[in-house]
Amino acid sequence: MMPVPESPCIDDGIERTGDQVDFKHWSSAIQQRMERALSRAVPGPALVPSGLHEAMRYASLEGGKRVRPLLVFAAAGLCSGVHQAAEQAACAVELIHAYSLVHDDMPCMDDDILRRGKPTVHKAYDEPTALLVGDALQSLAFELLAAPGLLPSAQRQLQMVACLASAAGSQGMAGGQAIDLDAVGKTLDLSQLETMHRLKTGALIRASVRLGALCGAADAADLERLDHYASRVGLAFQVIDDVLDAQASTQTLGKTAGKDAQANKPTYVSLLGLDKARQLAADLRSGALASIAPFGHGAHRLAELANFVIQRAF
Amino acid sequence: MMPVPESPCIDDGIERTGDQVDFKHWSSAIQQRMERALSRAVPGPALVPSGLHEAMRYASLEGGKRVRPLLVFAAAGLCSGVHQAAEQAACAVELIHAYSLVHDDMPCMDDDILRRGKPTVHKAYDEPTALLVGDALQSLAFELLAAPGLLPSAQRQLQMVACLASAAGSQGMAGGQAIDLDAVGKTLDLSQLETMHRLKTGALIRASVRLGALCGAADAADLERLDHYASRVGLAFQVIDDVLDAQASTQTLGKTAGKDAQANKPTYVSLLGLDKARQLAADLRSGALASIAPFGHGAHRLAELANFVIQRAF
Repeated sequence: MMPVPESPCIDDGIERTGDQVDFKHWSSAIQQRMERALSRAVPGPALVPSGLHEAMRYASLEGGKRVRPLLVFAAAGLCSGVHQAAEQAACAVELIHAYSLVHDDMPCMDDDILRRGKPTVHKAYDEPTALLVGDALQSLAFELLAAPGLLPSAQRQLQMVACLASAAGSQGMAGGQAIDLDAVGKTLDLSQLETMHRLKTGALIRASVRLGALCGAADAADLERLDHYASRVGLAFQVIDDVLDAQASTQTLGKTAGKDAQANKPTYVSLLGLDKARQLAADLRSGALASIAPFGHGAHRLAELANFVIQRAF
Repeated sequence: MMPVPESPCIDDGIERTGDQVDFKHWSSAIQQRMERALSRAVPGPALVPSGLHEAMRYASLEGGKRVRPLLVFAAAGLCSGVHQAAEQAACAVELIHAYSLVHDDMPCMDDDILRRGKPTVHKAYDEPTALLVGDALQSLAFELLAAPGLLPSAQRQLQMVACLASAAGSQGMAGGQAIDLDAVGKTLDLSQLETMHRLKTGALIRASVRLGALCGAADAADLERLDHYASRVGLAFQVIDDVLDAQASTQTLGKTAGKDAQANKPTYVSLLGLDKARQLAADLRSGALASIAPFGHGAHRLAELANFVIQRAF
């Protein structure tokens, strides 16, 4: 891999706050940047069909911790990634994530009424709109990744499209969702639960890290190390989600709490209990940190992100 | 544009039946080829999650007239397109079309129980499966277009991704669907109805022709002529659909007939009456043929397709 420059070239704003600031300021700068970038990327109600566009913005703006974009930027920073491409890739991943939440919340799926403290899209609008919002956000993600000249190498850009498409599809996120639905009321063992989450949440987390790395000079060995890191962080993320779902109140979580237990879905907490689930998450964090140790200080944002994912539940 | 070779290089099977055979044999050869290609492209139930993959195949195989793939192959043939790329592009377009049918048939949309003479996906399986089938078919379409080395030029391949993503999204097919839903019970004038259909059906028809042309040596002027052709064919297609919906029995159509009138949706027939709607379709056909006249005999498959689209209703 090319040497990491003294001052990461990700963005003017983020560059100035680059290595010198703590994780909180770095992540906050990226979250703000993402808000602006998504606001530019998702058409506004001035464009026809205005109702659909308004609902697409409702579903994708002002939302969440932007964990996947943070991973894209951290990986791009490590690999000296092109800043505009990292932003666009982060938007694409986040739109895929946003679309999946909209569809997952629909009455025929989880039938949820709250998301990030706001009414879900089918509640704020209606079911047909929610369906189309998800569909159109997915298309938009690929449109963003295919923008002409996003990367100097069109071939590398095609790899980004292929990576995100595969992570979103039947052998990625959508497939994990199908396994999840099928698991309701069933007894899964730990390995089956892991397979489900590897697809359902893990695939998009891994894609985030890979897209960031593809924006820069990562070689095959770098990509493999980063993939090990991302697999562990992805699984830890889901374990912690189960822990939070089991223990948090609806208010803290910003979505209806305890849904998984109510729905009789197998979780890490139902299989392992709270303490062992927390321990598993901690072990996964250690594994993630070990995978990126060879990168040294260049990977410190990725290390901080592994900690951040775990600390949500401690 | 490069001269069209004596024997179109689209496919061994189709090459042998190339210029020498009539439209019926040509289209039948492509329909069979598409069945094989889609069967390879959509994962089978041997792969996890098997239930989702089985439903994805149910939604995309043995289906329809494959009008969009025929357009891809006809445009690729005119432009001396790379045969493997044309097949892959045709699969991608057809998967986007198949996903849109699955979602459109769902209870919160058209609530239809029959499609191509078979139970719709949410009837044959269930609603959550139908939702995920549509989502995963969309991802798969972009995965196919991003396959490494599909075209000699990665840049041209990225243009294909961008073209399909934009045609499928909020300012294409999904947007047209949103306008359509919004139009229920309203009075639209002819121009508003045209805007709706330009997005809802037209965008994907235009993308089919463009993707085919991008597989080959089309220059900007060729692309513009072909786009004029495709706009007219796309609109004619929808006008004829309205005519068929108004006059056909459920048996002939393979889907529940008269749904649009029942749903109080504006159609070309409700606005113009049957005879004038048929006349409009005929005029659009003439316009389409005029647009491709400069290509001479090279465009004869496109001309035949314009006739084919119209003749469904005569």
